[in-house]
Amino acid sequence: MRDDGAVDDSEARQRLAEARVARLATVGGDGAPHVVPVVFALVGDVVYTAVDHKPKTTTRLRRLDNVMATGRASLLVDRYGEDWSTLWWVRADGTAIVSAADSPDAAHGVDALVEKYPQYAQCRPAGPVIAVTVSRWRAWSGS
Amino acid sequence: MRDDGAVDDSEARQRLAEARVARLATVGGDGAPHVVPVVFALVGDVVYTAVDHKPKTTTRLRRLDNVMATGRASLLVDRYGEDWSTLWWVRADGTAIVSAADSPDAAHGVDALVEKYPQYAQCRPAGPVIAVTVSRWRAWSGS
Repeated sequence: MRDDGAVDDSEARQRLAEARVARLATVGGDGAPHVVPVVFALVGDVVYTAVDHKPKTTTRLRRLDNVMATGRASLLVDRYGEDWSTLWWVRADGTAIVSAADSPDAAHGVDALVEKYPQYAQCRPAGPVIAVTVSRWRAWSGS
Repeated sequence: MRDDGAVDDSEARQRLAEARVARLATVGGDGAPHVVPVVFALVGDVVYTAVDHKPKTTTRLRRLDNVMATGRASLLVDRYGEDWSTLWWVRADGTAIVSAADSPDAAHGVDALVEKYPQYAQCRPAGPVIAVTVSRWRAWSGS
């Protein structure tokens, strides 16, 4: 880590891979920002997240519409604590696609999600999968 | 809370107000999504966050450029736990402006930040302030 808090790409990647929750930021066709928490799995340079059985207020999810409209996404993981010298965050920016639940690409992502989250062992995610190919890592650490 | 996990606006507002960290999503003039963790204070319908003394990799912050370019922002707070029935999130979408550090509007926001965070008592944030006027609350709770 450098004095200005920058973190190198390999450490950024590791911190993201180990995190249990990320925030997925997308942009609507109308230019509106959108952000939701997601569980995810990193495979190589691709972050997968799936529409699962957790209850939703609508089946027409804006995250899917946005990715289909713009093809871009940004994922953030971070640590918060009251000792601000312990704060850190990692952001992964990239191109994004939506894969239908029954496609081979979606199955690949879902396999990785099931491996990471025991919660998925009982009930495999059955919805579409968003795949974000990371083109830029950004990270910062307070200490 | 409704069966589909929706949460009413007053509960959403309270959960956001009490959270210690939020994620601020903005959009660049080029349409790129951007998201960073922020400390913040809610005053009425306005969320304030300030550029502070925490080290930055650059003084030209993209969050400021983005708000100045598009005038929009979305803030998310969420709870993660391995028991997925305990998950919840709140999102506040709105219009956003940047106020210069020496403006009365910025001072109002910084006062609220100093009141919320003892960490700011020793060193009051001295940078520009982003003010997001919330126009829509969205929230979900797993249980």
